[in-house]
Amino acid sequence: MKGFVFHGPGESAWQDVPDPSIKDATDVIVRVDAVTICGTDLHILKGDVPEVRPGTVLGHEAVGEIVEAGSDVHTVRPGDRVLVSCITACGRCRYCWEKMYGQCRADGGWVLGHLIDGTQAEYVRVPHADLSVHALPGALDSNDAVLLADIFPTAYEVGVLNGHVRPGDTIAVVGAGPIGLAAIATAQLYAPGRIVAVDLAATRLDAAKRLGADAVADAREAPEQLIADLTDGLGADVVIEAVGVPETFELCTRMVRPGGHVANVGVHGKPATLHLEDLWIKNVTITTGLVDTYSTPTLLRMAAAGRLPTSQLVTHTFPLDRMEEAYDVFARAADTGALKVVLGGPQHEVVAVQAA
Amino acid sequence: MKGFVFHGPGESAWQDVPDPSIKDATDVIVRVDAVTICGTDLHILKGDVPEVRPGTVLGHEAVGEIVEAGSDVHTVRPGDRVLVSCITACGRCRYCWEKMYGQCRADGGWVLGHLIDGTQAEYVRVPHADLSVHALPGALDSNDAVLLADIFPTAYEVGVLNGHVRPGDTIAVVGAGPIGLAAIATAQLYAPGRIVAVDLAATRLDAAKRLGADAVADAREAPEQLIADLTDGLGADVVIEAVGVPETFELCTRMVRPGGHVANVGVHGKPATLHLEDLWIKNVTITTGLVDTYSTPTLLRMAAAGRLPTSQLVTHTFPLDRMEEAYDVFARAADTGALKVVLGGPQHEVVAVQAA
Amino acid sequence: MKGFVFHGPGESAWQDVPDPSIKDATDVIVRVDAVTICGTDLHILKGDVPEVRPGTVLGHEAVGEIVEAGSDVHTVRPGDRVLVSCITACGRCRYCWEKMYGQCRADGGWVLGHLIDGTQAEYVRVPHADLSVHALPGALDSNDAVLLADIFPTAYEVGVLNGHVRPGDTIAVVGAGPIGLAAIATAQLYAPGRIVAVDLAATRLDAAKRLGADAVADAREAPEQLIADLTDGLGADVVIEAVGVPETFELCTRMVRPGGHVANVGVHGKPATLHLEDLWIKNVTITTGLVDTYSTPTLLRMAAAGRLPTSQLVTHTFPLDRMEEAYDVFARAADTGALKVVLGGPQHEVVAVQAA
Amino acid sequence: MKGFVFHGPGESAWQDVPDPSIKDATDVIVRVDAVTICGTDLHILKGDVPEVRPGTVLGHEAVGEIVEAGSDVHTVRPGDRVLVSCITACGRCRYCWEKMYGQCRADGGWVLGHLIDGTQAEYVRVPHADLSVHALPGALDSNDAVLLADIFPTAYEVGVLNGHVRPGDTIAVVGAGPIGLAAIATAQLYAPGRIVAVDLAATRLDAAKRLGADAVADAREAPEQLIADLTDGLGADVVIEAVGVPETFELCTRMVRPGGHVANVGVHGKPATLHLEDLWIKNVTITTGLVDTYSTPTLLRMAAAGRLPTSQLVTHTFPLDRMEEAYDVFARAADTGALKVVLGGPQHEVVAVQAA
Repeated sequence: MKGFVFHGPGESAWQDVPDPSIKDATDVIVRVDAVTICGTDLHILKGDVPEVRPGTVLGHEAVGEIVEAGSDVHTVRPGDRVLVSCITACGRCRYCWEKMYGQCRADGGWVLGHLIDGTQAEYVRVPHADLSVHALPGALDSNDAVLLADIFPTAYEVGVLNGHVRPGDTIAVVGAGPIGLAAIATAQLYAPGRIVAVDLAATRLDAAKRLGADAVADAREAPEQLIADLTDGLGADVVIEAVGVPETFELCTRMVRPGGHVANVGVHGKPATLHLEDLWIKNVTITTGLVDTYSTPTLLRMAAAGRLPTSQLVTHTFPLDRMEEAYDVFARAADTGALKVVLGGPQHEVVAVQAA
Repeated sequence: MKGFVFHGPGESAWQDVPDPSIKDATDVIVRVDAVTICGTDLHILKGDVPEVRPGTVLGHEAVGEIVEAGSDVHTVRPGDRVLVSCITACGRCRYCWEKMYGQCRADGGWVLGHLIDGTQAEYVRVPHADLSVHALPGALDSNDAVLLADIFPTAYEVGVLNGHVRPGDTIAVVGAGPIGLAAIATAQLYAPGRIVAVDLAATRLDAAKRLGADAVADAREAPEQLIADLTDGLGADVVIEAVGVPETFELCTRMVRPGGHVANVGVHGKPATLHLEDLWIKNVTITTGLVDTYSTPTLLRMAAAGRLPTSQLVTHTFPLDRMEEAYDVFARAADTGALKVVLGGPQHEVVAVQAA
Repeated sequence: MKGFVFHGPGESAWQDVPDPSIKDATDVIVRVDAVTICGTDLHILKGDVPEVRPGTVLGHEAVGEIVEAGSDVHTVRPGDRVLVSCITACGRCRYCWEKMYGQCRADGGWVLGHLIDGTQAEYVRVPHADLSVHALPGALDSNDAVLLADIFPTAYEVGVLNGHVRPGDTIAVVGAGPIGLAAIATAQLYAPGRIVAVDLAATRLDAAKRLGADAVADAREAPEQLIADLTDGLGADVVIEAVGVPETFELCTRMVRPGGHVANVGVHGKPATLHLEDLWIKNVTITTGLVDTYSTPTLLRMAAAGRLPTSQLVTHTFPLDRMEEAYDVFARAADTGALKVVLGGPQHEVVAVQAA
Repeated sequence: MKGFVFHGPGESAWQDVPDPSIKDATDVIVRVDAVTICGTDLHILKGDVPEVRPGTVLGHEAVGEIVEAGSDVHTVRPGDRVLVSCITACGRCRYCWEKMYGQCRADGGWVLGHLIDGTQAEYVRVPHADLSVHALPGALDSNDAVLLADIFPTAYEVGVLNGHVRPGDTIAVVGAGPIGLAAIATAQLYAPGRIVAVDLAATRLDAAKRLGADAVADAREAPEQLIADLTDGLGADVVIEAVGVPETFELCTRMVRPGGHVANVGVHGKPATLHLEDLWIKNVTITTGLVDTYSTPTLLRMAAAGRLPTSQLVTHTFPLDRMEEAYDVFARAADTGALKVVLGGPQHEVVAVQAA
């Protein structure tokens, strides 16, 4: 079959790879119908994630059909259309016992397209299938569903739920890329009083408005002051970091009110400065996290009911075999306006759905 | 009357000051029977807390008898023996409405010995008395009770409760001064599996053991490794920071397990480095806070029932008029072995209760 | 002035009563601009609430302007437009300390129109004003705001929050009177998957649909079966009882899924049968409660932002002096289609806003 | 092998039965080293649990050694000494996904000695072994460990945790049989202010005192009054029902304070009366539940550390083949003073450990 293979920093190709096969009785083989590219994949290509070995097929998000299932797979069967979650869960280690599947201590957690071959291929082997793929409601389109493999549960669990968003709250979301936009979308499940999006790019701030932000702020123009003005000087109840650099994290800690939450979702490569000389007295809660996907069944029900604006995040679609072109469009997001690009089977036309 | 007055960095005196009087109908005047010195008072003396104006009587912890009450004081009356809490609460602002009394937006929060005259005097005026003093159970000795004005609720709320200590957990407490020891004492209300104390001073680690630490570690001897060894490499469930310098905070973030809590109690004067490049993926929760004293009624009941080892923290007692000597003993804790020094009326002898 | 006075079972009149005056320094006098009638008032008229003494002015919900304030009132001042909450809170007893204001142990809780003269009058004295009235945002119409005195916080706290409504949940609301409708409205703050309303009256079920119910069921036509059909036989995640008779409570306990919540909001006069032989094994949580009004500030912000459909519950308005007629319309709700009737100053016309 | 077989109401025998064998790849076969008898087993013998078919081997609690494991068992292996939990968990259904293992919708939940052959035999087949047996710490004696199969997690989760026991609380435990005593023992993990045990039998009240009850009350002598006297008339913060008859449940609802919790642990065969005419206004929370065993790993750690008084509940031990005699002693608890009887291999002597 064909797959998208990492060959070391800066080198990758859509090429022939061996077909995957069942290794353990809890595996399934999924024919990939829709797959997407994550910002993390770009980091891997740059060589920022050294544990990814050359030769690995990338990708950790997919929708597809099960074509084969090991003898100990119970929740799904061949022919089922499923969501392949970015998190693989053994279901029996200490962390899985506590629903912290992302921290699975056995051979789970984030493994697809990281420690084992991933989803950017015609077929993918998914281990521990019972807890790692989810049967899809018929009503849910593959292009919508694939956003529930990673960014929606990530934004919801690590941003909205860790941040304890409550009705009436003032929420600031720093970073209006795909994850930030998914945070804006899912924060609305808790009826916040207002959502303020902060970013550098006007196109992203426009997208934030379309997805429900009540106000937007250019990151260069004192967003702290806007938050202060809106909250009688107190600060935001919840601030969600969705960028992953020290400056934005530090901005978040300046925007939060005493007693508020800073929920970090961004993937960081460097340390940040924590101004404890100001924060020690402020009763703030700072959380970090890899997604655990405990919310995926709920999000699937809500998406099937049309209550999540998943499709609004998909700006481009491609057939699967134009993976390299899709990577290029996604990597040049500032130019192309790309948010999420989705690739699929022959029915997928090359479409720039909402590009500016 | 006499009181201990701050006159600017490095200058202070036990001297004549005007008697306090009722200013607002919600005030009480308390005759001070027991008072203690807080590490924060030492910071004030050094000039580290610039909002304290020269001329202010210091002190924010006391036990005494109400000698006069304003017309709108309802929960206590003259003759009542009371605890004067370090936190004053208006009871009606947004933060008081949410039980976050330490963040009171009116004229409350930490004000005694900070923004208004405090408790290190023969008499003290306490505003908003209804929520800011607590009638004392008869069974409770003043020297015990005075520790409930600040350090016990601080250690319990900001350390143990913010840290979500649960039965069976592994707890690390970094810093075995008075606050750290109170954290060790109150953590035991939740039956942790083990408590590990970390400090530089052998005498403090000995005190930690007396108060219930199951293991102790010299801060210079790789305490992370001890924690790792005790937890199969995972890290502590809860780490309580009770020092207030960047190094100890950073140590705490290295000792916590994925999914665990770092509860900062220490008062910090400088920023720390937050290693988000390691922590972003670890599902950690970091909390900060000034005490809110919502737990004080519960702690009072428990202390009256003999369930809090308050007296074990009192190493020295003095009569009230030997305040300057008491400050000296407390400031030279490394030499004197002082944990908490308590000053009181004529019945207080100069006693080094447990000094090494 | 004029007020609506209870004279014993079956006897009442809109009549001259003495003007109220400040008794305690924490009192305010409010000129009533909008007031409503609660189902509880009908119970009082029938003699079902024996602690209401003949001679009492009824009513526990109002919006108005402060005309006089005691010397110890701090959060509001004469001239302020305020919401008079159904709950009066001393702010200092054990229960107020825990934000359980409805259970205030001093002279608070539900006292207006119950133990002291209430709001169905031209003026009302409100004790403990600091925590018992709320300054109104300018944008909020009095007819909307008055619904936040009782039914909105009651439905939200005792129904939605006690019931732990979560995004995606299936919610059943039994009883589509004003409280049930307010529960349907406020449940939507948590993005439930679906809300099913159950009632006997078609007009009320129509109102439920207008307020956001996704499905409705006639209480005589096996609503359990509808819930079972919608949930693969499991039952509802949350069931809110908003009637107050044994049959409806028992229906609720048959409709809840294992692990679900039954939140009782109804005011009951008789015991119900609890089928523990079925329920003991089902991990259900049953809650009861008088409103505590801790959510009132949040609801006020949300109403001011136009996010609560308060006005949809107001079916009739009257001038204040047509109180007796308003009682008649409200008491004959089955005939008149009345949900909430609001009375106000001269500007209030007699209007049947949405009556069928 | 031998096993204890139910043959219909009133009929049972220790007799030859077929050896169990692996049926599914997730099964294990355990050689039983210690087993106990539950009150539920007595109900089955009387015919109160009709879904138990004649021919079933009873018993749902055991400690033993794995002698065979299916090909898809990962957490344990032959030779491991394990606790056989009363709850079997598939680990992949909706309820297992939420850690509510007792409500497992697949073929789990309470199945051993109920829907399939149980543990009162020389060997037992345990399905879904990965989540249904727990490797035992070496330090833990089998007679202690076997109490963690059911009564300790049941009392802890369904009584103490569902009841939200907090430091300083007043706890009433109604019923001082094995489950009530385990509730008294595990409530102490949260440092309650006082525990009051209520029972009819003086010997059980004595046992309650030994396990840590601070006060005891004869159920015939107005225990409500004792609770009222101890709490200034308010009532208990938490009341745990550990009997299972309507009278005791109703007593619990009379003893709880406004805002308190009633946690039902008892197995009920009849409905109770719920006095909603009193309770609707009291902000009470009533919970029910079958154990989910999510706490079992924690309790095992605590028992291994010597922090659970498990052995104090074992009054009698027998060799395995004297099962019928053990049933007799357990069934006549009022005469024999039996709390828990434990049966084991040849090393188990007939011992009345603590019988009166």
